[in-house]
Order: sequence, then structure tokens, then C-alpha cells
Amino acid sequence: MKTDLIVDNVSKHISLTDEETDLFLSLLIEKKLAKRELLHKVGDVCRNSAFVIEGALKGYTIDNAGGEHVLNFAVADWWIADMYSLFSQKPGVLLIEALADSTVLLLSKENQELLYKQNPKFERFFRILVENALVTNQQRLLDNLSLSAEQRYLNFIKKYPFVLNCAPLHSIASYLGITPEFLSKIRRNIAS
Amino acid sequence: MKTDLIVDNVSKHISLTDEETDLFLSLLIEKKLAKRELLHKVGDVCRNSAFVIEGALKGYTIDNAGGEHVLNFAVADWWIADMYSLFSQKPGVLLIEALADSTVLLLSKENQELLYKQNPKFERFFRILVENALVTNQQRLLDNLSLSAEQRYLNFIKKYPFVLNCAPLHSIASYLGITPEFLSKIRRNIAS
Repeated sequence: MKTDLIVDNVSKHISLTDEETDLFLSLLIEKKLAKRELLHKVGDVCRNSAFVIEGALKGYTIDNAGGEHVLNFAVADWWIADMYSLFSQKPGVLLIEALADSTVLLLSKENQELLYKQNPKFERFFRILVENALVTNQQRLLDNLSLSAEQRYLNFIKKYPFVLNCAPLHSIASYLGITPEFLSKIRRNIAS
Repeated sequence: MKTDLIVDNVSKHISLTDEETDLFLSLLIEKKLAKRELLHKVGDVCRNSAFVIEGALKGYTIDNAGGEHVLNFAVADWWIADMYSLFSQKPGVLLIEALADSTVLLLSKENQELLYKQNPKFERFFRILVENALVTNQQRLLDNLSLSAEQRYLNFIKKYPFVLNCAPLHSIASYLGITPEFLSKIRRNIAS
């Protein structure tokens, strides 16, 4: 199990002793996903947070007309889950799917609560993680309201170069809140 | 200082002893805001979380062309802050303005950190608070991607009846991601 990335991820926010690091790592389970494999389905209760070691995943919904709506992408060094379901332990609203062959480390809800009880440092770590996710989400809402689709696409290229290579055009368009046709037009404009 | 609402807000997520409740309340400062008064300005570092006791506030940005982009509204029993600035202690990106005469309770960043150090329960409380805010934000992103503007407006009416009465039309339209003209059209459709 490759653990360097997740140890660095945690060290950004809290300092752990060797024993605390060992405890944390002992609670993780490695899972390999083939391209297009689902990590989570609508209606299932989300039992785990997933930390991406390699590959990329997308979180999305499908509406009644079959339209895909992409909430988020996760690449290496990012966490992903159906947050609504994970926090509430009610049936989830998202599909989470591998965009490429991927490896994730799973931390179960039970083990996360166990960490909180054993050591408040971990409560601190996950509080900061969720704070950062909230700020990222708020920035995305503001970008959707205030930036042109072309500017949002240019920002996307910088932030998600890996996703650009493995996600279908319609998923990237959905994430940006535009039609695939409009995204194709933007790409042609940028190329010319 | 009216404290029932905030004590109930905290009690939803953690159980406090009388001493712990007294400590928490002793760290709050009441602030009254007149309609249109700013609680926070772009470029200022956000020093406080604000809990709304009465009235309503909006968090927004102004773009270079003078256009307003509304990130969020906060009514009684809600917390509001420039989260990016509060967490990072860098200059803020939002204006936070009273939509009506309002009363808020301020908890400073320093006192919040003090609570975390003194008692992990408070770290737990704010972790859960931010988790709920994240889920609300994700739901709004998904709604923007998947629901019609009319459906989003109908949801808004249910969720924010107070804001409906005190926010200008263009702010509500901005929050919904549509033009004021389109919102007027939706309102006429619903009325007829």
C-alpha cells in the first residue's frame, strides 16, 4: 500500500507521532477501481471517505431525462465521498465513478469516528479538510455566477490537467454548467 | 443578549454542561446592523463567525462591470462569514451586508480557536456545522446544474420566505443564477 501521499496530506494540517501515523494507516483499506467502475451508487449509504492515490473519479447525478450533472472530480491527493450520505448515513444522491484505472484508500465512517474519539487531532484534521472543501465549493459557485464559460474552462485546464485527458467531453461540459456543443465551440475559439 | 437560539443551535450537535454553555456564551459579542450596513468588506480579513438572531444578511461579490453575484443568504439561526478569509486569515473576497435591520452574535477566530483547545466538543460542533454547509453548497451546485430556474425559485420561496420580503429582485435573481428580467417572467408565470 502506497502511503506517502496520504501521510503528506495529513501532515499539511496536523502533526502526528509515529504511533498516531501507524494507527491512522492501520485503519485504511486499499481499493483498486477499473475505468468506469463505480465506487458509490445512488441510494446506497456511503460508508467510506476515499483518498485518491492514482487515477481520477467523478461524482455526479443522472436526472430523469438521462442527463448527467457532474458535481466534482477527484484526482490524486484529493478526498471524495457522497458527503450528504456519509454525514447523514441516509441513502446517497451521487454516483462516484472511476474515469481511469484508479487506486483509492478507504477510511470507513466507523473508523473515522473512532479516530475522533481516540484523538482530537483527527477531528481537527477533518474539520480543516471540510473547511477547505467548503471554500472550494463556494469559489466554484461564485465562478459559475461571475466568470465567462471560457474563463471557467481555462481555469479547469490548469486545475485538472489529468481529468482533461480521461473525462468525456460531456462530463467536463456538465461540470462547467454548459452544453457539450458550447464547450466544443470554446475549444475551437481557444485553438484558433 | 438573546441566547436561546444559539444555545439551541449548538445543542442540536453537542451536549454541553451549564459551565461549558456559560463559557461559550461569554465569548460572544452582540452586534446590531442597520439595513444596508456592511458586516464585512472585500479586502478585509474576516475576524468573526456571525450567528444571526434576527434579520437577514447576504454574502456577495461585485465584478469589474459592477454586477452583483450573491453567494449566500443567512437568516435567523444561520451562521455566516467570509469563510475563505476566516479560515485562511487572508484578505476576504465577499461583501456581507444586512438586508434588513439585523442582530448577530460574533464569535472571533481567536475565541473559536480557544474553544477548540479547551474542549474538543467545540471542534466537533464546528466540524459538523461546516459539513452541513458543504452539503448545502453541493446541493445548490447540483440544483443549478439539474433543476429549471422556475423550480429553483420555488425551492427558494420555501427556504427563504424572509429573504423574499427584504432582498431586492436583482439579488434573488443573482442567487438563482438568472437575470432579473427572467425572474420577473417566472414570477408572472407562477402568478397566472
